[in-house]
Amino acid sequence: MKINEIAQILKEKNNFEILTHNYPDGDCLGCGYGLCLGLQQLGKNARVVTTALPKNFQFLTKGVKEQVFQPEYVISTDVADEKLLGCNQEKYQGKIHMCIDHHKENRVDAVVKYVDSTAAAACEIIYRLLLEMGVTITKEIANCLYTGISTDTGCFRYTNTTADTMRIVAALFEIGCDRDYINKVMFETKSKMRIEIEKEIYETMIFCCDDKCAMIYTTVEMAQRAGDDDLEGIASIPRQIEGVRMGITIREKPDGVYKVSVRTNGDIDACKFCKQFGGGGHVAASGCTIQGTLESVIEKLKKAAEEIL
Amino acid sequence: MKINEIAQILKEKNNFEILTHNYPDGDCLGCGYGLCLGLQQLGKNARVVTTALPKNFQFLTKGVKEQVFQPEYVISTDVADEKLLGCNQEKYQGKIHMCIDHHKENRVDAVVKYVDSTAAAACEIIYRLLLEMGVTITKEIANCLYTGISTDTGCFRYTNTTADTMRIVAALFEIGCDRDYINKVMFETKSKMRIEIEKEIYETMIFCCDDKCAMIYTTVEMAQRAGDDDLEGIASIPRQIEGVRMGITIREKPDGVYKVSVRTNGDIDACKFCKQFGGGGHVAASGCTIQGTLESVIEKLKKAAEEIL
Repeated sequence: MKINEIAQILKEKNNFEILTHNYPDGDCLGCGYGLCLGLQQLGKNARVVTTALPKNFQFLTKGVKEQVFQPEYVISTDVADEKLLGCNQEKYQGKIHMCIDHHKENRVDAVVKYVDSTAAAACEIIYRLLLEMGVTITKEIANCLYTGISTDTGCFRYTNTTADTMRIVAALFEIGCDRDYINKVMFETKSKMRIEIEKEIYETMIFCCDDKCAMIYTTVEMAQRAGDDDLEGIASIPRQIEGVRMGITIREKPDGVYKVSVRTNGDIDACKFCKQFGGGGHVAASGCTIQGTLESVIEKLKKAAEEIL
Repeated sequence: MKINEIAQILKEKNNFEILTHNYPDGDCLGCGYGLCLGLQQLGKNARVVTTALPKNFQFLTKGVKEQVFQPEYVISTDVADEKLLGCNQEKYQGKIHMCIDHHKENRVDAVVKYVDSTAAAACEIIYRLLLEMGVTITKEIANCLYTGISTDTGCFRYTNTTADTMRIVAALFEIGCDRDYINKVMFETKSKMRIEIEKEIYETMIFCCDDKCAMIYTTVEMAQRAGDDDLEGIASIPRQIEGVRMGITIREKPDGVYKVSVRTNGDIDACKFCKQFGGGGHVAASGCTIQGTLESVIEKLKKAAEEIL
């Protein structure tokens, strides 16, 4: 299916529900509300179905009309698998008409599928789709799409960022999206708890292999206190240190289980490293689970690091 | 002067020296080496004159030929004032033929001036200039220009980033610049000392005015231990905290002097705040100097913060 073909289908249908994934992020919410605004602009009924709407994403709903209608056409955006629909899975499983996504390994069972894994964010696809549908990209739609694209690319730092990403964002800037507000909220805001937890994590840092390997850890107590949001992205901390070629993050789980994340610059095979412990993943980012005490886990990892570095 | 006119001048001249500013950053070095590579590609002699070349910027010199020649034409790039030439000021003062810059308040005395303050980075101007001169933007030149543009925009987070910035970067991506390497070195690398100092700074954090104001401080000892590089950007730490509307950074200097940096989101006038203490600056970023003990300085700032918040 080509993008103009899926645009044609949407133009012919009405009464849409747009599904997002569990623990919704900037990209799926940006897709959802951006597409919803576009469909409403064409005089159609549409709503976004989400398991949650975190406070910092509430601005995305600006301009979205609450409409009462009987849903006829279900679209999933940025959802790689029906399992990721969370509490909405049961209701929508097997009932998705159109799946729009950028995850290579998309497993959604839908009548129509449009998956473009070259898109850094699913919002890039929605941008093109809206243009094909003849929607005017308003400031509100631009805000949704910029939020998705900027968050899924780490504000254009990640390797998935492409020339097309930059050109789409140039267009969104010209429409006058609230880039400064969005950047501030998404990238320049830390909670007090995050600051507290970062400080504690820095204190756990251990170096080995002539400082080529750095390890950090979190305890069950720290994880409970901080919560998922405030621990996001911590696995990237040890590898950021100058000279460090392998960064290891150890997360204590209940019952003597330790989840280990390994990050390298791709020159050292993190996947091979984790396979020794029954784990795996990618060359630059892998993980495994080790049982034992914190001390024994650290010792095992140190020994393995010394062999590989 | 239009950009095609300055391109024409450069095409007619030969034997160039390109000046950068003191404490060189990604933008002036990117301009210098990018322009140097372009001029050499046209068969001309050129060299970059810089007061220093930090280790993390050495990749910018890749492909630059060392040429022996008698300089005839001096260009300054990204230099707002001759004073900023550092130890090169005496030699070049009054001898600059062409000044290319993006600082609004450029004060360089040059025969030909091209200042475009809408450019997020001076490297944006160099990009356009090289194209006007008929230079092929090679991967090496693209690396120089991407380094300048990405560093001067905080990797596209700062408010100076424009649609044109994004379009130029899209072109640099297509040329195949080493974006991932540059992002890693410029934005994802922290020294061990930086981690240590951040941890210590987090420990100094004080909140007041119902957590709407956060303060941090560094002592003379911390500043000496960390050095300028590892203290860069710390003034942005307190304002990043969720709910904080005014972030204050206090730097102890010798002899009971404290340098104070105030950052707001622009809704609170940092300049007005600092003027009470004989300082000033911009609405969102200002500074002042206060004498006394650390305790008395904190008390004074707290009191002033309570009045304004």
